[in-house]
Amino acid sequence: MKPLAQEDRQTLVQLKSDLIAQYDDYCARQLSLDMTRGKPCAQQLDIANPLHGLVDGTNYFSENKTDCRNYGVPTGLDECKNLFSMITGIDPSLIVIGNNASLSLMYDTLMRSMVFGEIESDRPWTNESIRKWLCPVPGYDRHFAITETLGFEMIPVAMTPDGPDMDKVEKLVASDASIKGIWCVPQYSNPDGYVYSDEVCKRMASMKTAAKDFRVFWDNAYAIHDLYPEHRRRIPNILALAEQSGNPNRFYVYASTSKITLAGSGIACIAANADNIARVKKQLSLRTIGPEKLNQLRHARYIPDMETLEGIMKKHAEIIRPKFEAVDAILFEELGGLGIASWCKPDGGYFISLFLMKGTAGKVVDAARKAGVLLTPAGATYPYGKDPDDSNIRIAPTLPSLPDIETAIHVLGICAKLVAVEQLLDQQ
Amino acid sequence: MKPLAQEDRQTLVQLKSDLIAQYDDYCARQLSLDMTRGKPCAQQLDIANPLHGLVDGTNYFSENKTDCRNYGVPTGLDECKNLFSMITGIDPSLIVIGNNASLSLMYDTLMRSMVFGEIESDRPWTNESIRKWLCPVPGYDRHFAITETLGFEMIPVAMTPDGPDMDKVEKLVASDASIKGIWCVPQYSNPDGYVYSDEVCKRMASMKTAAKDFRVFWDNAYAIHDLYPEHRRRIPNILALAEQSGNPNRFYVYASTSKITLAGSGIACIAANADNIARVKKQLSLRTIGPEKLNQLRHARYIPDMETLEGIMKKHAEIIRPKFEAVDAILFEELGGLGIASWCKPDGGYFISLFLMKGTAGKVVDAARKAGVLLTPAGATYPYGKDPDDSNIRIAPTLPSLPDIETAIHVLGICAKLVAVEQLLDQQ
Repeated sequence: MKPLAQEDRQTLVQLKSDLIAQYDDYCARQLSLDMTRGKPCAQQLDIANPLHGLVDGTNYFSENKTDCRNYGVPTGLDECKNLFSMITGIDPSLIVIGNNASLSLMYDTLMRSMVFGEIESDRPWTNESIRKWLCPVPGYDRHFAITETLGFEMIPVAMTPDGPDMDKVEKLVASDASIKGIWCVPQYSNPDGYVYSDEVCKRMASMKTAAKDFRVFWDNAYAIHDLYPEHRRRIPNILALAEQSGNPNRFYVYASTSKITLAGSGIACIAANADNIARVKKQLSLRTIGPEKLNQLRHARYIPDMETLEGIMKKHAEIIRPKFEAVDAILFEELGGLGIASWCKPDGGYFISLFLMKGTAGKVVDAARKAGVLLTPAGATYPYGKDPDDSNIRIAPTLPSLPDIETAIHVLGICAKLVAVEQLLDQQ
Repeated sequence: MKPLAQEDRQTLVQLKSDLIAQYDDYCARQLSLDMTRGKPCAQQLDIANPLHGLVDGTNYFSENKTDCRNYGVPTGLDECKNLFSMITGIDPSLIVIGNNASLSLMYDTLMRSMVFGEIESDRPWTNESIRKWLCPVPGYDRHFAITETLGFEMIPVAMTPDGPDMDKVEKLVASDASIKGIWCVPQYSNPDGYVYSDEVCKRMASMKTAAKDFRVFWDNAYAIHDLYPEHRRRIPNILALAEQSGNPNRFYVYASTSKITLAGSGIACIAANADNIARVKKQLSLRTIGPEKLNQLRHARYIPDMETLEGIMKKHAEIIRPKFEAVDAILFEELGGLGIASWCKPDGGYFISLFLMKGTAGKVVDAARKAGVLLTPAGATYPYGKDPDDSNIRIAPTLPSLPDIETAIHVLGICAKLVAVEQLLDQQ
């Protein structure tokens, strides 16, 4: 195996012919495989089976004797704040519990910024004629969709294995007051699976920003989602860092149990320092008489302590680790040493980020789709769906079965080679 | 019993002395009774006990075989749309299911209006330098709190037994383009318990509005909440009326099971015509990967048909009707014929609306509080908490026990008489 770019024309022509034959074989199998979304598989959801029976018509009281069936408790049950404190390391008093989706809490936070502004704002963000937002790339398409719909000009910033390129971030935010914030997935970033270094976290907390109302949306979606607990590395408590750095209001932290218990029926939280969270609570009390508390009660009872929590996460790892390893192995088998692909081998999270030869990702996704393998659209991991290198593909290995993943990644590998060979031949 | 205003001074002085003695007796009992909020009592919540066991680790599939534990189904399960179609009479295709609180859906709708505007808007509502909102009074304090926080100038409009004073409404909306909408609780209005007449509904749907993006927030919170099923009268399908009247985009309809199943753990919906609901769905899909669906599944299974639904509502009525009747009887016993009070005798809903002698409601609530009976603050049923007549008190009879209600209403009656007598003596 030598890099394809070093092969002569004849070899490439022969290779192309071989690859087309392999590709046609897969097409003939009429596959229908979906690798698009980071959804847990049924076996993972089964882990939480004991959850369902933990509330019935006799045991609906919280620890402080609140009837959880009725209205009230707008910020959530104390026992759930403790649960999220275990997950995030943040003080329970700074945590507010929502319903099932942390994405909703992020959307709502930005809607409030638009209508009311932040503590330090001169005006609501809707009244900022130009508003910009930093987007580490590759990143999470649903994050980008929110800032896009709210009219932020999204500025991509490259990810590194230690987190966003902080030289770039610091330079941008120091000079442009219209940059109001940044999306971050600090632990097992989506899709690269990188863990922000302590240094990056410190710089994020202490950097000078031209916008006095700058906010970091710290989406800690994979806070404890280790594939290899023995490799575990944790980000620092960012609210404490922000306080120490003299920027106490900078961060909104989000987490959920969506990938701990049930993806569609977990509970989510927002956390922030005292001043921010007081404003959140005020608006929240206008928005609802209280969140759904029986599911909170189920969760608090299901995960009473750290030992249980870690036990659950180990079960997840046991189910999905073989899938991640299969993707890695087959990518290596298909693409290793050819100089046309690189990919991350994350220690946790939900994705594998694959970088193909520039200018080929879109064609590869198209070719795979025609062979019955659905991949996340090329570009989805970039603002506006546009990857300037047309290179990155996000692989979501958790949902499909191991045999399906193996097939799908072989197809992906063949498509990646075929499109690369065609491009090399075109360029010769 | 002749009207107090016709009594001579000597009689009033003697009456005052008697009332003070009665009042002091109640004070000596060190009561602690809370009549403030429209919360169901535990016995009502017990009706839904069978709900809790309807989903477990084996039966989490919807009718169309979706695994309800996982992400997805952003607009809600078909079977829940059918449930809300039973409740509201609206076509299931126009219904979107949310989580547990219809108030959140209203708040979110207005936040979207603020940031994006409505279909016909020239600009987002945040950019309207003056924005106004009509508030039928007395009305629901949580509605008013939302429009207040969003900077609407709230204009009170009197309620009548047939609905808001439509002469006034029509005149206001025809001439002032800054009036963007109106709050309505059309079936068993909060707090009067009035049902809008067909005529009022028709006029609401067909009236000319200066604002082309005018919206009616049609909060059908008590759609089927009859105390006397035999007196039942139903509002028409307002979306159909709006369509017929050539104002198809005018209404957002809200409903929930909060007072059918569990106040804090029900499910809620928003409904609107095709164009509006398409916009709702678009933003919703940016806000969440899907609502919590296991509770939807529980609800759909618990209430499979209209017969079950009506059976549940009859059980509620049997529990709370005696409480409503006790309030009515004791108000009559204490205040009947004295010319200082009138009150509604609703056929459904959650409240009794009491009107006292002008200028006395605040003092009565204070006096009751000192005697250990908490009532909703006087003025709460008016925008900005200000009842210009200082007359209305909202009584919420569902939560307390029957003996507690009886005691509380006696105290309220004595306080109402005492404050009235003092005022009459002052005025003589």
